[in-house]
Amino acid sequence: MSYSVNVVKTFSRNCFIAARVNSEHAEQISDNLVHADLRGIASHGLTRIPIYVERILRGVVKAAPQMKVLTDKGPLKLVDGDNASGAVASCFANALAIRSAKEFGICLVTVRNSNHNGIAAAYTIEMARAGLLGICATNVSKSMAIAGSMVPVLGTNPISFSVPRKGHEPIVLDMASSVVARGKIVEAAKRGDPIPEGWALDSEGQPTTDSVAAEKGVILPFSGVKGSGMALMVDMFSGVLANSLFGALIPNLYSNFTDPQRIGHFFLAIDPHALEDGAAFEDRVETFVGMIKSAKRAAGVDEILLPGEPEMRLEARRRVEGITLPPNVIADLNETAKSLGVPPLDRTKP
Amino acid sequence: MSYSVNVVKTFSRNCFIAARVNSEHAEQISDNLVHADLRGIASHGLTRIPIYVERILRGVVKAAPQMKVLTDKGPLKLVDGDNASGAVASCFANALAIRSAKEFGICLVTVRNSNHNGIAAAYTIEMARAGLLGICATNVSKSMAIAGSMVPVLGTNPISFSVPRKGHEPIVLDMASSVVARGKIVEAAKRGDPIPEGWALDSEGQPTTDSVAAEKGVILPFSGVKGSGMALMVDMFSGVLANSLFGALIPNLYSNFTDPQRIGHFFLAIDPHALEDGAAFEDRVETFVGMIKSAKRAAGVDEILLPGEPEMRLEARRRVEGITLPPNVIADLNETAKSLGVPPLDRTKP
Repeated sequence: MSYSVNVVKTFSRNCFIAARVNSEHAEQISDNLVHADLRGIASHGLTRIPIYVERILRGVVKAAPQMKVLTDKGPLKLVDGDNASGAVASCFANALAIRSAKEFGICLVTVRNSNHNGIAAAYTIEMARAGLLGICATNVSKSMAIAGSMVPVLGTNPISFSVPRKGHEPIVLDMASSVVARGKIVEAAKRGDPIPEGWALDSEGQPTTDSVAAEKGVILPFSGVKGSGMALMVDMFSGVLANSLFGALIPNLYSNFTDPQRIGHFFLAIDPHALEDGAAFEDRVETFVGMIKSAKRAAGVDEILLPGEPEMRLEARRRVEGITLPPNVIADLNETAKSLGVPPLDRTKP
Repeated sequence: MSYSVNVVKTFSRNCFIAARVNSEHAEQISDNLVHADLRGIASHGLTRIPIYVERILRGVVKAAPQMKVLTDKGPLKLVDGDNASGAVASCFANALAIRSAKEFGICLVTVRNSNHNGIAAAYTIEMARAGLLGICATNVSKSMAIAGSMVPVLGTNPISFSVPRKGHEPIVLDMASSVVARGKIVEAAKRGDPIPEGWALDSEGQPTTDSVAAEKGVILPFSGVKGSGMALMVDMFSGVLANSLFGALIPNLYSNFTDPQRIGHFFLAIDPHALEDGAAFEDRVETFVGMIKSAKRAAGVDEILLPGEPEMRLEARRRVEGITLPPNVIADLNETAKSLGVPPLDRTKP
């Protein structure tokens, strides 16, 4: 079933407002969730509303946080997220990073005591729209092996990079440290299909192509020690640097309703215009883009796409055609809405 | 054949001094090359002396550069490398980044008009030894496809991250954006062995496991769009940001003796002690390390190693046992030495 952006945004906002989140914060969380669905990252879309709401209602995430800047060195700041919803703490930190990068040329805002903050691309796109190069990274609760382990030690810690373009949407890379999204293993297991080598270990720590065995085991980092090292570094530069939790210490999003996740984030913004010849930065980016687009294509490739370009195109289409949600997600959302006294998703509305 | 660190360092320094590089700069270049050989990254070791020297002698790299800071915003600086040897411009920039990070809490030094700068880990290790978290990235001349192309558009642009440890060598990730070093394809072709799927395309743009066909084709990025996107972002944050050359515009190190490479670098240093609770940063790192080291190991794994740990152990061994160089490399080095009037490598010396 397909719903307009307006309908899903209003629905999402109403759910969080019903959970006593103020309207500005409800908007920030909803923007991130809807953005994920628009870009085809269904795992980070509206499907998260029930768990986000449940954590707020149970008090393990604060409905009315008081975020504050604990350290302000100008181009380096530390924010206390005060156990806010991740998107709320992240919007606060990202706005600070953007403002200060314009003042100092560069700014890193590191955040402690936050929660799962949705898709990282949402924040780096904001930086790029403000004319800045951006890097955003975060730790998340454990689900992935470190190279050599057979148990989860690290999250699939994502990192996103963005570059502004003149007259175009930004170039945006947003990648998890795992070889694939865990959802792909779950789906293969449901269908009874095998998975490629290198995706997972079974519960005995042996490599497996059996999706059912993989589901009971652990997902592997991309490219072996590269993804493993990247996940570790993302955690060092976010959780450890901010003195938040890290590695296996982070409580699970879905099963622990007692302990705040205390997730750490990293927001770095750089103003190219602060440098000599920075004014022509966007022109150089277009030269590079032209070089890439006109490169001789491999067999079976119709067009070379920039990082983020497939997602951007899907977003443009879904803004017109609406967002399609699977029946089980709709059922979950309407159940949450009912418990909150919020009107259900209504696909008859524009 | 095996040579002591003293012998190879003196040899290397003598070669560059004979090419009219001053002794401080000769030391910087030699330190990077020897460091690579100590850590088992033979592709970036002494084997590069002949090409580095040739480029200096032909005047395509400056023997006596005048590097300067073009933009100084405090925590953000732009350095003109003045066509110095890459290690020379990089040591200048890295020292600036370290000094200013201690002053401002963070510092990014971006460099234009530089050259091939050896192993990135050498610079991030310096940052970590100064107590800082470090990121170093650089573009290099094209040899890798971007996802979708059948021709090289990007370099195997590396990125390195480092984290300081108390009483231990730093944790250091240093990874190229390619799935493997190109040298592995060359070696497989020499032996007539096949290569795994996903390493390369043949000259027709088709995936191949034939190492000879792969050698004539193009190497692929790690993990498809992830490595491809990472290589692009590294170039955007180094070459494009610094207004240096980028992508396919960078002249080849081995075949173009007319045009300076004009490579761009990125050096970011962060002082954890500038943040609240930063004093205990190293303690948190040790907690994380303990968690990793004690994780249940996968089948056949004796010990879980941190990023950079295998290289660190090899370095410790080679500092005692010396560096082993293959006969063809020794022959090349002694030929270069002869042409410069420098004494050959002497393995009878301590």
